[in-house]
Order: sequence, then structure tokens, then C-alpha cells
Amino acid sequence: MTALVSVIMGSQSDWETMKHACDSLDELAIPYEKKVVSAHRTPDLMFRYAEEARGRGIKVIIAGAGGAAHLPGMVAAKTTLPVIGVPVQSRTLNGLDSLLSIVQMPGGVPVATTAIGKAGAINAGLLAAQMLSMYDLEVAERLEEKRKVMTETVMESSDQLG
Amino acid sequence: MTALVSVIMGSQSDWETMKHACDSLDELAIPYEKKVVSAHRTPDLMFRYAEEARGRGIKVIIAGAGGAAHLPGMVAAKTTLPVIGVPVQSRTLNGLDSLLSIVQMPGGVPVATTAIGKAGAINAGLLAAQMLSMYDLEVAERLEEKRKVMTETVMESSDQLG
Amino acid sequence: MTALVSVIMGSQSDWETMKHACDSLDELAIPYEKKVVSAHRTPDLMFRYAEEARGRGIKVIIAGAGGAAHLPGMVAAKTTLPVIGVPVQSRTLNGLDSLLSIVQMPGGVPVATTAIGKAGAINAGLLAAQMLSMYDLEVAERLEEKRKVMTETVMESSDQLG
Amino acid sequence: MTALVSVIMGSQSDWETMKHACDSLDELAIPYEKKVVSAHRTPDLMFRYAEEARGRGIKVIIAGAGGAAHLPGMVAAKTTLPVIGVPVQSRTLNGLDSLLSIVQMPGGVPVATTAIGKAGAINAGLLAAQMLSMYDLEVAERLEEKRKVMTETVMESSDQLG
Amino acid sequence: MTALVSVIMGSQSDWETMKHACDSLDELAIPYEKKVVSAHRTPDLMFRYAEEARGRGIKVIIAGAGGAAHLPGMVAAKTTLPVIGVPVQSRTLNGLDSLLSIVQMPGGVPVATTAIGKAGAINAGLLAAQMLSMYDLEVAERLEEKRKVMTETVMESSDQLG
Amino acid sequence: MTALVSVIMGSQSDWETMKHACDSLDELAIPYEKKVVSAHRTPDLMFRYAEEARGRGIKVIIAGAGGAAHLPGMVAAKTTLPVIGVPVQSRTLNGLDSLLSIVQMPGGVPVATTAIGKAGAINAGLLAAQMLSMYDLEVAERLEEKRKVMTETVMESSDQLG
Amino acid sequence: MTALVSVIMGSQSDWETMKHACDSLDELAIPYEKKVVSAHRTPDLMFRYAEEARGRGIKVIIAGAGGAAHLPGMVAAKTTLPVIGVPVQSRTLNGLDSLLSIVQMPGGVPVATTAIGKAGAINAGLLAAQMLSMYDLEVAERLEEKRKVMTETVMESSDQLG
Amino acid sequence: MTALVSVIMGSQSDWETMKHACDSLDELAIPYEKKVVSAHRTPDLMFRYAEEARGRGIKVIIAGAGGAAHLPGMVAAKTTLPVIGVPVQSRTLNGLDSLLSIVQMPGGVPVATTAIGKAGAINAGLLAAQMLSMYDLEVAERLEEKRKVMTETVMESSDQLG
Repeated sequence: MTALVSVIMGSQSDWETMKHACDSLDELAIPYEKKVVSAHRTPDLMFRYAEEARGRGIKVIIAGAGGAAHLPGMVAAKTTLPVIGVPVQSRTLNGLDSLLSIVQMPGGVPVATTAIGKAGAINAGLLAAQMLSMYDLEVAERLEEKRKVMTETVMESSDQLG
Repeated sequence: MTALVSVIMGSQSDWETMKHACDSLDELAIPYEKKVVSAHRTPDLMFRYAEEARGRGIKVIIAGAGGAAHLPGMVAAKTTLPVIGVPVQSRTLNGLDSLLSIVQMPGGVPVATTAIGKAGAINAGLLAAQMLSMYDLEVAERLEEKRKVMTETVMESSDQLG
Repeated sequence: MTALVSVIMGSQSDWETMKHACDSLDELAIPYEKKVVSAHRTPDLMFRYAEEARGRGIKVIIAGAGGAAHLPGMVAAKTTLPVIGVPVQSRTLNGLDSLLSIVQMPGGVPVATTAIGKAGAINAGLLAAQMLSMYDLEVAERLEEKRKVMTETVMESSDQLG
Repeated sequence: MTALVSVIMGSQSDWETMKHACDSLDELAIPYEKKVVSAHRTPDLMFRYAEEARGRGIKVIIAGAGGAAHLPGMVAAKTTLPVIGVPVQSRTLNGLDSLLSIVQMPGGVPVATTAIGKAGAINAGLLAAQMLSMYDLEVAERLEEKRKVMTETVMESSDQLG
Repeated sequence: MTALVSVIMGSQSDWETMKHACDSLDELAIPYEKKVVSAHRTPDLMFRYAEEARGRGIKVIIAGAGGAAHLPGMVAAKTTLPVIGVPVQSRTLNGLDSLLSIVQMPGGVPVATTAIGKAGAINAGLLAAQMLSMYDLEVAERLEEKRKVMTETVMESSDQLG
Repeated sequence: MTALVSVIMGSQSDWETMKHACDSLDELAIPYEKKVVSAHRTPDLMFRYAEEARGRGIKVIIAGAGGAAHLPGMVAAKTTLPVIGVPVQSRTLNGLDSLLSIVQMPGGVPVATTAIGKAGAINAGLLAAQMLSMYDLEVAERLEEKRKVMTETVMESSDQLG
Repeated sequence: MTALVSVIMGSQSDWETMKHACDSLDELAIPYEKKVVSAHRTPDLMFRYAEEARGRGIKVIIAGAGGAAHLPGMVAAKTTLPVIGVPVQSRTLNGLDSLLSIVQMPGGVPVATTAIGKAGAINAGLLAAQMLSMYDLEVAERLEEKRKVMTETVMESSDQLG
Repeated sequence: MTALVSVIMGSQSDWETMKHACDSLDELAIPYEKKVVSAHRTPDLMFRYAEEARGRGIKVIIAGAGGAAHLPGMVAAKTTLPVIGVPVQSRTLNGLDSLLSIVQMPGGVPVATTAIGKAGAINAGLLAAQMLSMYDLEVAERLEEKRKVMTETVMESSDQLG
């Protein structure tokens, strides 16, 4: 099936975090592709990739990066598709640098930023699905279903306290 | 025209910031509605509003709030539509509290967070349009056009230096 | 005995922290109930729970949550009972996000916030007891007694130095 | 009428902030007293004041202070009444120092901390009233009434947008 | 004279800061060129500009940007000339976002970062001159001369105290 | 020998840090006493201790504490002897809370603050000795001697590189 | 009268802050000298000044600086007299950079750090006096007297509330 | 071969970080020397070293330090050669103190600051090489070659995902 979502990351070591975005997409049966694309080490590839994404049928791009995290913002500068940025937890500043580098975009070029680390990656996959659900009722139903399961799991968990 | 985007904010004083989201939508001719909905002061209204949004034809919700900014996350908990959160600049902590309260959502309930303040509001409008552009080529074209104008404006601005 | 204090938390994993609130209540013989209630994953349950608390005889609610911690503030929006918020230490930002999400409430809806993590949970239990002690002299005496023991423990601990 | 709530502050300049706590109490017809008591400049007065509060019929103490804000925590060390701490916005660090100095209390001596600045002072007054409402139904009703007015005000404010 | 230093900035509004870099270069008689080049709004221009810089005889690039400041890092990704990054003071976070976005570059692509705002811009010009002085003794002498004047100015300023 | 320096700490667990202050004093043969004195758990003891210190011949007080660290500031409020505050590294916020709670004292009551953790404790001992050295030439000489050894150790350490 | 305290600052613009240190010394009749000495712009003067201070009869050095504030630490590296560091409020980061640059000294070379800005300068003067009071009973008495006045002023200020 | 680059660090324990700067230089065959020079513990050595560097043929100085990191800035104050500062990750504040102490230099004395920790050290070596490449085409070619290898490594790493 043609990929609707693209999951890219600045380095192979970001996979530990970004695989959770892929898990979310897998659970919701959303076709996606994944790739290492580095803003700083493969800038030309990044630009080409961003430019061609819409033409290839990609609907949303999820980009994860850490530290001076320029990948989401630079991809967003080269496409008008929605770009979701995942701040990967950095070693020295716990991802605060990643978060600010991704979220503080100037007016004109948005990046839809999620939480730092694993939770943010999980949510990036869900957010991509939510965007698809705007016009795809089947995805919307799967999302609703997933929510129900989540609610039930929480309600049962009270019994495990103490 | 039926509203496709909903722009809500936690208090009337957030309008100074959130009007920039409406300006972005106006420029791109995206129909929207706007409303004050407070997580803390009108919680029931907020829940009803979020629950009914998809049924009323809303495709994306933009929610702005400041301080312990719970509006975007709580709306996101009550709908599977994409929710864009705009951290309004707070008085005491410059919006760092707003940003962290909005972006650090747990896995399962995403909020697409933009920059603190005016730039974030501008981008929230654009991001909503980008989501619509996934399946609406006309919006995609208008976004491309807007980008071109933006690029030209920058290129001409070098002459004004010094 | 009917519960006077309600101890709720956003996820089962918060129990590691929140059990210290229960320990404080146990030591002071304050009857309480405990439950997992998630702002984002069980929003309707949360609202119902908060709404019904006063009617069921609950006097104080202790709510612990981490990250974009919306539970204490949203419960506070649905009851006029005092709500104590415990910022659970988050993985990426050490609980600074939890703290700001809980403490920076807008005027009109207070949350009585304690310290991040274990110390905050211990103190949430004590604070609930202190509120009960306003009109319950027996609880007041038990609190005074506990203080005395604490003081003596510190005074004896000097001998263990070096 | 005998004061049920005590509003103290570290310096006269904190009044600009702390008067909002008094306004909240006035609106709810809660009798209170107000006083400048400085942890660093009148330490003995502070101790005596805290020690005698319960005996004098005080039920809750609201203490506001800024910078290395020791007043709420030290008062809390000398009484088992609930102490509400209001971080006054400091000049150099915007009240982050005040907040951390007040909220990060060690296990054993709680301070119920509210938001930095004006919102925190407003809420300190409300929180004191909520504590009184635990056993005083009239206060509970006044609080509910105030909430309703607040909700209506928000609902009407949408009309003022734009 | 052919420009040896290139001073670029992400937007015209950065000129207020970046002109101080030009002033430093003027004082030391270093030929330079200046230009608005935006990472997000003119990405292709930025890449072309960075790629061609060495070939055109440029020896050092000074790049100033604010917020999610990607310009210095992305230019650095497209050239092996030394790139000096100046964090322009941002409105909401005082330039902390600009600083972290510029300085926290991953191993492989350095950016020589200076202080936030005016002092950083002044120093960017001086730093470029210092790099030229490595092999240009005349520039080295001018720098030494400037230092001496600076030292004398400080020594005389004691008389103005009080 | 009569103690000239008093080393106090808020809890027994601070000893791990504060023993380094004692080590510094031991090395310089400065007589000292050490004690657990808690601002929050033994407030009366703390006041008495601070009040009597000068009379007992103590010349400097070193006080270590973590979190909402009130011990140094409160001791300083009860004596006019110089008080050195050591911010003990806290668990949740790495000692930033300890540092701000100690250093941000209001005008009128100074605390001489050192670095967070072990380095700060080492330096607290040295700083106390430096104060004594103002009028005690023998201590001054021992300090000079220690500096020389330190310098030599560094100069020899280059050989161990790589 | 021979100066016992030396008040130095990194630049003439720091005088606005540092004059408050001089005011404290004036009030207590402590003889002092004041001077602009810049770590970065007059490094040799700084070293000479620090080296000769003890020999000239100086007992304490107060050094104020902002931003990457190296003056207090470098002076401390060249003398074994106690050095008090005052973090001058910086323009971009509110003095947090000044504070960390001054207080986080490595083990071996202490700087007695006070609060950021005016309060810190006032306290630097008082702290110097407190050090002198260790062996000078007259200064000790003046300090006690000043405290008493301060206490009375606070106690009277309650009347001005509201 | 005569050293062109000098790699200095504040303490032997910084070697763990700074060796990565040396590795970068080794890979590019740039001759360098390395040394422990402490701003606080060997101030005179530091000044002499900085003063003599240009005369000895050194072209760039790389200085790493942590905490109140004064080495890079003080070396920069004593030479007009470009100085690269590497903020070593500190124990208590994760290197935020090191970063601010190094980067926030006043106008007049620049330090070219790199990222905190290992990445910053790697980049310090590369940045020194880039400066040399301004006039040394062979170094420029080696840098280009290294970039190509880096790009290829990233492009191949996509295959390792998942």
C-alpha cells in the first residue's frame, strides 16, 4: 500500500524513540515509510525528500530530532504538507533544547510539536492518524475504538493500586 | 459557509493573540468559527463543545490558553479530531508554563503545539490549512502561493538593511 | 468508615509516588479512598467523580499527575472542595512541567500545590489532615504529636554525623 | 467578627499582590486579619504569631513572599494549621525563585502553594474559603454561587471577540 | 574590495542586532557583505548562498537568527567555512530558545556561537577578524590596538564612579 | 579547642555533602562543631542556636540545606555573624531550588552562598577559613600553602592526559 | 582612614547596582575604596589588584559583574582574602547567567555569592561588615542596631496596609 | 610538526570530554598540543600561556571547562587569537552553568562557543580545522571529504531501522 505518512529522523539513534510513532501507525493500520534524513549531514537529501513528498502521495510528515533539532522546521520550510515534530530527549539538557528548537518556529512555517521523547513519538503517530481521519471515516472509527480501549484500561487499573 | 476550523480560547484576553490565527484563516479563505471556552470556568461547555465538533462538520480545533493551560489537552481528550494548541504568553513566566502545560501530553492524547504567542497563533491557522490541504488541492495551491509571496518579500528586504 | 479524603492519580504508575500520601493519612488514621482517574483518558469519569465528591462526604481531594498534569486543575474546576495537587516527577523534565501545569492556575480555580514527587505526596496527606484539623481537635492533636516525634528524631540524629 | 483567616506578607510592598487575597475573602464575607510579618526581619514576631494563631481562632494562614521566600514555610513549621503560600513575583527571576522557595518543602511540613502573583493571591483567598466550606455549608453555597457567575461571564464574553 | 566576511540574518528585524557585527568589521576595516537570508522562508537561496560562499572568496560567515534559529546551523551544513552564530534576543523566551537552537549542534557540523543579542553581534564581528588575523598580521595588529584602547577606557572609567 | 566555625545541616542525609566542609576545616586545622538543625522540624532549636552562636565564641556559621532550603536564611535572620549557605543537590530539580532558596535573600539579611553540592561544601569550609584569615595570619599562611599545593597538582596533571 | 573593604565592578554601568554595596558600608561607617576593574578588558590590572589587596590592608573584596561574570572568581583565584560576588542583572537572561557564572565555582576557590541585583549589592556590603564584626565588636554592635531598626520598621508597616 | 592548535582544559577530569576535540584534529591531521591549564588554580600559568600562544605559532586555542567556566573567557582576554570554548557537562546543572559562563561574554572579548559535552568537543576540533581551512586548501579538502563520508554513513543507516 502506498505510504500516507512519512516518519523521518535525524539519526539512527533516534529510532529508539521514533519507533513508537511507527507502532501507533501500525496499530491503526496506516501505511507509512521510515527513513533517516539528517538536516545537518544530508541537507540536500532532506530538501529533495521534503519537496517530493506531496507529489509521491505522502499526506503528513513526522520528523524526530534532538539537540539543535532543525529537521522538522527545515522540512516544513520545503513543503506545505503538515509536519509533526518530535523532540528527541537530548543527553545534556533533557530535550529542552530539542523542544525549543522545534516549537519556536517563526510565523509562516508551522511545525506541529508533540511532547519530548517516547510519549511525543506515540502521539505523533496518533496525530497523523487524526489528520487523516478528517476525511477518512474508517480511520476516525479506529481512533474512537482505540480511545475506548484506553479508557477501559484506565478504569480497570484502579484495582491494582496498593 | 460551514466552519471547518474552530478557534477557541480560554479567556477573552487571549483574543489579542488568537486573532492572528483567524487572520491566517481569513487570508486563505478557510471558513471558521471562534469562541471563548474556558477549561476551568466553563468545563461542561468545553466537553460538550469538543464532543459535538466532529458531528457539526468541524475538521480541526485550534485552542489557545495561557498559564496552567489545560484547554487544548482537555479538548483533545474529548475528540479524535486534530487539536492545535497555542501557548499564550503568560505574565509571570513568559509562556514557558503555557508551553509545557500544552506540549507535554501523555501518550494517547496528542496536541499539535505551536510557538508561544503571536507566531504560534499565526502558525496555528496555517497548520489547520495545511491539514485541510491534505485532501483539498485548492487550499494546497493557496498555501504554495502564500509561500512564494513570503519568499519574495524576504528577498526584497535585503535592500532595506542599513 | 466513610472516606473523608479522596486520593486520585492520573495513571497507575503514579502510585509509586502517591502511596506516600496514603501513608500519611494512614498514620493519622484519616479514612480515605484511592482511585486511578485520568484527565485525558477518562475525562467523563473524572468530571462525574469531581461533581459527586462533596455529596458523598468527601472533604478534600488529593490529585497527583505528571507532565502536562491537568487532573488537579480539572477536578478543581468541577468542585468547590479544596483540591491538593501533587506534581509527579516526570521523566524528561524532572517534574518542572508537572509543577507548572498544576500550580499556575488562573484566578478563580485554586489548586493547593505541594512539592514535586515523594515529599509532595507525603505533604499532601498531611495537608489534608491539617484542613480536617481546622474543626477536628483530635486530628489537630495527632498532628501536634507527629510534629513532636519528628522534632525529636532530628535532635537525636546529630549523634549519627560522621 | 473574629478573624478566621490570617493574611500575612513579608513586606509592605507585597500588599499590591496580597490585597487580591483579601478581595476574595471580602467577596465571600470571610472575616480575616492582615499583617506584615517578615521571616527575615521580624523572625521572633513570626514565630509568636504562628504559634498563637490556632489558639486565637484562626483556621487558615495565607502567607505571601518573594525571592528567597521563607515566610510560608517557616510559619508552617510553627503551626499545624493549613498554610497557603503565595509566591510574589520577584524582580529578577519573575517569581520562579519565590515559587521554588515556597513549594519545594521537605516531607513533614506542607505549604499549599498557589500560582505566582495576582492569580495566586486571588486563589489563596478562595482556597481558604474552600477549606472553611468543608464544614460550613453557607460558605460552600457562596462558592458555588460565585462559580456560576464566573461561568456565565465567560459564556457571554464570546460576543466581545473581534 | 572583495568581501571576506558575510553577515546574514533571518529577517530584516534582526538588523537592529546584527548591525553591531557590521560596526565591528567596519572599525577593523574588514570588507564584508550583508544580506537577509531566511532558513524557513528562503531555504533554496540559503543553500545556494552557503554552497557558493567559499568559491566567491568569503572566508567566514556570520549568521544571526532568533527563536527556532536554524539559519546558522543549516548554513554550516552546506559549507566547510567557519560559521559564527548570533542568537538574536527573542520576544517570549529572551533568546534562550535562540541560543539553544544555535549552540547545541550535533557532532560533525559546528557553529561558533556568541552571546545573545548586541554583545554577541559585536563579538561575532571581532571573532571573524580574529580568524582572519591567524594569517593576516595587519588585522592582528588592529585587534591588539583595539584591545589597548578598550583597556584604557576601562581604566579611566573608575573616575566616573559615584 | 573552642569551635570557631559551626557546621549545621537541615537533615542527616545532608552529611554526605556537608562532610566536605568539615574536611576543608580539618585540613586547615580550624576548630569546628557540627550539628543537625532543621529549619522546619526543629525551628526553636534553630533560633536558639543562631542567637547563642556569637556568645559562645562561634565566628562563622556554615549551613547546608536542600529543596526549599530555609536554614541558612533563617539562621542569618537570627545572628549578625556571617552565615555561609551551601545548596545541597536536591533530587528533583538538581539543586536549582536549593540555590535560589538560599541565594535570593532580600536586602538586609545576607547569606554567603557557595556552589551546589560537594564543591560548594568544600568551598564553604575554605571561605570560613578565609574569613578567619582576615585577622589570623597563621590561617592566611595555611591557605596560601594550600593554594600552592593545588597549583602544583594541576601543573603535574597535564602529564596524565591521554 | 585606610580602606578595609574593596568594592570593584566589571564596568562603569555596574555602578547603578554596586553603589548599594557602598551605601551599606557608608551606613556602618566601614572605610572602603571603589574601582572599575574588568576581568576581560583589564586582566593584568585585575591580577595585580587582587594580588596586592591583602598587603595593602584590604580585608574583604566585593566584586560585581554581569553576564559571563568572571571578575569575582578570577579575583578569588589570586587572593586568599574572602571575595563576595554580586551577580549584576543582565539584559538578556535577567542575571541567571551572572548568578551561575559566579556561584558555581569549583572546589578550592570560593566566592561568597549574594542575590542578583540591588538586594545582592546591599547584602554584599552588610556581609563584608559581618566578616569584620567577627573580631570588631563595635561593628557587631552597629549591625545589631541596624537590625533592630529594620525590625521596628517592618512592625510599623502593617499599619500602612490597605 | 609545530602545533597549530592548542587544546587546554580546566582539570584533568575534563579530558574525558576534550579528547574528542583531539580526535577530530587527529582525523584531519592537524598538529596540536594539549595541556591542563586551570583559570582558578593556575591563573598565572593561564595568563602566560595565553599571552605567548600567538608568538609560538599557535593559530587557534580550544578551551574546555565546566561549572563557573572561566578558562575560555579569560584566555580570550589575554590573546587576540580565536578562542573556542567547550562547555563541559557539569554534575549538578547538566552544563547549563558551563554554557552560560562561556557564551555570555561581554562585547569586546569573543569566545566561539560549541555545544555542551562530547558533541561540542568534536565540533571544537572541526571548527579549528575550518578556521585553518580559510587559507589552507588542503585542510579544506580534507573537511569536504569528511563531510562526504558523513553524508554517506547517514544515507546507509536508514537500512538499519527497525
